[in-house]
Amino acid sequence: MKNLDETPRSERNTENNCQEEENQLETSHNKSPLLSDSWKPYQRPQWLLKLRCCLGAVCGMEWYGYAALGILTGFLSFLMDLSVSKLLRAHQWLYMKLEGHSLLQFLCWTLYPSCICVVGSSFSHSICPFSTGSGIPEVRAMLAGFEMPHYLSVTNLFTKYVGLICTLAAGSTIFLGKVGPFVHLSTMVGAYLSKLCSLDKAAGEMMVVAAAVGVASCFGAPVSGVLFSVEVMSSHFAVKHYVPCFFSTACGALTFHLFSVWSGDGETLQVLFKTNFPTALPFYPLEIVLFALLGLLCGAVSCCYLFCHRWILQYTMKQLLTSLLDGRQWTSESHNASVQVDPKPWLEWSSSGSSVYMTLTFFLLMKMWMLVLACTLPVPAGCFMPVFVYGAALGRLFGEGGAYVLSGLTSGQQWASINPGGYALAGAAAFSGAVTHTLSPALLAIELTGQFSHAVPALIATVLANARSRSGHRPSFYDAISISKRLPHLPSLKKACPWLPSTPVGQVLGAKAVQLQKTAGLVEVQHAVNSCTETQIPVVDSHGVQIFNSIMIIVLLQAHSILSLVGTQALFVTDSGRLVGLITWPEMKRILEDLAKEI
Amino acid sequence: MKNLDETPRSERNTENNCQEEENQLETSHNKSPLLSDSWKPYQRPQWLLKLRCCLGAVCGMEWYGYAALGILTGFLSFLMDLSVSKLLRAHQWLYMKLEGHSLLQFLCWTLYPSCICVVGSSFSHSICPFSTGSGIPEVRAMLAGFEMPHYLSVTNLFTKYVGLICTLAAGSTIFLGKVGPFVHLSTMVGAYLSKLCSLDKAAGEMMVVAAAVGVASCFGAPVSGVLFSVEVMSSHFAVKHYVPCFFSTACGALTFHLFSVWSGDGETLQVLFKTNFPTALPFYPLEIVLFALLGLLCGAVSCCYLFCHRWILQYTMKQLLTSLLDGRQWTSESHNASVQVDPKPWLEWSSSGSSVYMTLTFFLLMKMWMLVLACTLPVPAGCFMPVFVYGAALGRLFGEGGAYVLSGLTSGQQWASINPGGYALAGAAAFSGAVTHTLSPALLAIELTGQFSHAVPALIATVLANARSRSGHRPSFYDAISISKRLPHLPSLKKACPWLPSTPVGQVLGAKAVQLQKTAGLVEVQHAVNSCTETQIPVVDSHGVQIFNSIMIIVLLQAHSILSLVGTQALFVTDSGRLVGLITWPEMKRILEDLAKEI
Repeated sequence: MKNLDETPRSERNTENNCQEEENQLETSHNKSPLLSDSWKPYQRPQWLLKLRCCLGAVCGMEWYGYAALGILTGFLSFLMDLSVSKLLRAHQWLYMKLEGHSLLQFLCWTLYPSCICVVGSSFSHSICPFSTGSGIPEVRAMLAGFEMPHYLSVTNLFTKYVGLICTLAAGSTIFLGKVGPFVHLSTMVGAYLSKLCSLDKAAGEMMVVAAAVGVASCFGAPVSGVLFSVEVMSSHFAVKHYVPCFFSTACGALTFHLFSVWSGDGETLQVLFKTNFPTALPFYPLEIVLFALLGLLCGAVSCCYLFCHRWILQYTMKQLLTSLLDGRQWTSESHNASVQVDPKPWLEWSSSGSSVYMTLTFFLLMKMWMLVLACTLPVPAGCFMPVFVYGAALGRLFGEGGAYVLSGLTSGQQWASINPGGYALAGAAAFSGAVTHTLSPALLAIELTGQFSHAVPALIATVLANARSRSGHRPSFYDAISISKRLPHLPSLKKACPWLPSTPVGQVLGAKAVQLQKTAGLVEVQHAVNSCTETQIPVVDSHGVQIFNSIMIIVLLQAHSILSLVGTQALFVTDSGRLVGLITWPEMKRILEDLAKEI
Repeated sequence: MKNLDETPRSERNTENNCQEEENQLETSHNKSPLLSDSWKPYQRPQWLLKLRCCLGAVCGMEWYGYAALGILTGFLSFLMDLSVSKLLRAHQWLYMKLEGHSLLQFLCWTLYPSCICVVGSSFSHSICPFSTGSGIPEVRAMLAGFEMPHYLSVTNLFTKYVGLICTLAAGSTIFLGKVGPFVHLSTMVGAYLSKLCSLDKAAGEMMVVAAAVGVASCFGAPVSGVLFSVEVMSSHFAVKHYVPCFFSTACGALTFHLFSVWSGDGETLQVLFKTNFPTALPFYPLEIVLFALLGLLCGAVSCCYLFCHRWILQYTMKQLLTSLLDGRQWTSESHNASVQVDPKPWLEWSSSGSSVYMTLTFFLLMKMWMLVLACTLPVPAGCFMPVFVYGAALGRLFGEGGAYVLSGLTSGQQWASINPGGYALAGAAAFSGAVTHTLSPALLAIELTGQFSHAVPALIATVLANARSRSGHRPSFYDAISISKRLPHLPSLKKACPWLPSTPVGQVLGAKAVQLQKTAGLVEVQHAVNSCTETQIPVVDSHGVQIFNSIMIIVLLQAHSILSLVGTQALFVTDSGRLVGLITWPEMKRILEDLAKEI
């Protein structure tokens, strides 16, 4: 065993690093890969460099960055909750003060949240329009290697934070959540920190960590935060990111909880939603069947929800009104639908063979809470928590119903103590998991309530709901947004175009690739060099050229995996041992952007 | 948005699959990639094929495989626990019956476990010697793509199962665990099932799932099972394996718990280790500092433990005796150690500058419980649980000590209700996490006790213990076994040889690679084809040849990542856009095996 104890070597490295970092600090001001606006840190004094060297001797500077990221995001989350609760209390106080004046009370009840919402919306729109919406699809595209500098600017951070406070303060009426925007906020904090500490090398890792910290700081739930980001953000997870993620989320959750304790919310670190489930007998073993049924139900309802969501993303209000105000009768049109004429707007209302009456009724039913959900409002807001609450309501209904039916059947003897709260927990996990195509909400529901007794039922319900909702390659909530916003995110594109995995890379690489034949003369070389903007030109064998358009051993998806995982700049595509093409990272990005535009 | 609703297509696929699978079933008997022994399933009757088609119409056959894997492993785990408890009860019954006969009682107390241990050991040794030890390092090497067919045979499954029951039944005295061997057992069940259901395509995925199910079924802890396998098994985790893993572990945990309920162990699904922590105030916020200190302590102790473990793996008993019985005086030798003579055995006793007395004292202290740990016994047994228990004891000591000191300092007013049980929980998580270089024991400790209140302290202690134990690229417990057994596992090799990441692939690829120059004549082509056993020969440009031995753009690790992730058969190595070499999967395996032998 050679050189197992390498302490001297690592000490030497620390000294060298110190010197290198000082040099790096001097030059890092000129580079601005993440922040596009003109903000620049001030020239650092000498003592700061010395402090940096001392800190760097204990552990890598990036670890201080991760800790700072967790602490800052946890603090921001606590401050947001505090502001929102103050604003809500002010609303209630005003309402109470106006007792006796019914009209004023009515105006207070309706105008206060509307005004806050309008303030938030106009603030976002005027300062930074990129700050609206959830942000998760954009963060995902950035993690996949696409640069979107406006989404990481400090202006955006500030606008999104204030806008989100306004949205949440009007939350009792417009029913919007905090998770998605907080992931985006946390990513912006991460980008700012990696700029501030000159951690350019660790900027990519910082973004992965920031995505996890966002969810964790939202609720003080460290484990499910990491798992949610693993599931939503990428198709492969490098295990080396595991420890930074957990370290930073633990810091974030701890900060969030400690500030809550110090602000007088409780004596010690507590779960966010206290429950009083019976501990002796949380549920009967056979209730597992009911939990499984609930999972399937949630999966089915989530399919309806996702269908409506995808569908609403395609229309504007104007298109909807145009089709609804159309003068012709829909039924007669759909009867002879076999006559293929030019596409009419109302044909969407009778898709997949059902009558327009049913579709309309269904639309009205769904629209009711779709309006309530208000996810199309131009304010910074997420949809995870509303979906979570909706699932909890669904589970509660199921649980209450089940308890009623079973107590009637068995004369109330054995099943008297069925706990509908457990079904609400499992329903929340299953429905939000099915909508986002993830399993981590099962753990989140447990972390939020502290009810570990229901871990297995919640997991089973979530797995079954996922099975139902993923069948037939349907896109998830975030996938649908990615597709509608034309973001070049490969897993979403894969769901929108199921033919993608079997597309040979040659088809999208196409005729644009400049190659040189082995037997090429000087003139051809000159021509190739002139016509090509790349710094590398592949030289292929004359046989290679013949094979070029046939099946290749790499398909598009594999090429993307290799490029994004290994960070190689160029990749040679071969068939039967022959070089048949070259694919570079900028080219891969262009292909994905083209694909996203095509859909 | 093209073709979002692809139901007709997927239906068509199902029909085609049915036909394909029937054909595949007929031919699959001839291939035997996983099971090397002569066992073959009987010729399937027609109704079985029909049933298979019906099942395949609901969801893919691999999902039935995952469910069966979970259920079978959960049942095996329950059956093992039952057998072990019966054997332990028989021991106690015999001891009670012999009351009054002190000598017989003494013999019963000592001989009974010894006999069981001997039976297990000789059984393992005579039937299948591969069944001894933990099995996790071997499973890890198999997951990395190396074929070790003897480790997956049905004979091994049977031998390991019986051997493990014997080990655990003698467990009160020899202190060995169940986790590692159960991961191996689960992998064997998975390999058997994928053979039985002709799931050759999903065999790789089945192994990933099986590794997770092994941990989950051991304790009925589904979430930490998946996380442990993610952390220990590979360096990259594909998110598409997430749902199969959780589905199978949920089945396994449910089976394990339900059988426990039906056997009369309790009224409903319960945590394995019941606790009675106070719910109102689980811990004071400032105790976080103590938990962090405990984490650092556990990390430091784990470094000692891992050092001893690595060291004991290098020596046989004979070598130890030789050095201990050496006639020369050690102190005088170590005083003029600067004179470089031939390596002497006792110099290992005074490595890293400390005196031999200290090292000896340290060795004796550690040896005491190293003997108790008995991880070198040739029986199927794991070391995770003993380490977990050791950590719990360490945490308990720390907690009790802290409570005593603090109650003395503050006159017992505020700190009277400190709960040392919480420290035991955090200590168990931190120590086992530090020894195995993982974070999932934090979640495991919570899943085993159901105490979610301690999630944040346990996570913080585990992260800090990991930080301490990973510093300086020290190998983990499993890494040390991989290195000592010369298993070609790249992440372990990386820890044993820190120079590996900077090794250019050309250095290990070396002169053996046959290439053809662009200007080669017919004779040279003939010669190259004759001298090369590969089916592919790279053709290189004359400039390429000159660059061949200089720095290349891929280093060894990246090449391995690409090959193992994408499953490509051959990879061209390029520098500055020129083809400079070819590396194939068999070649990569050979390189790793050579490296493992070299260490």
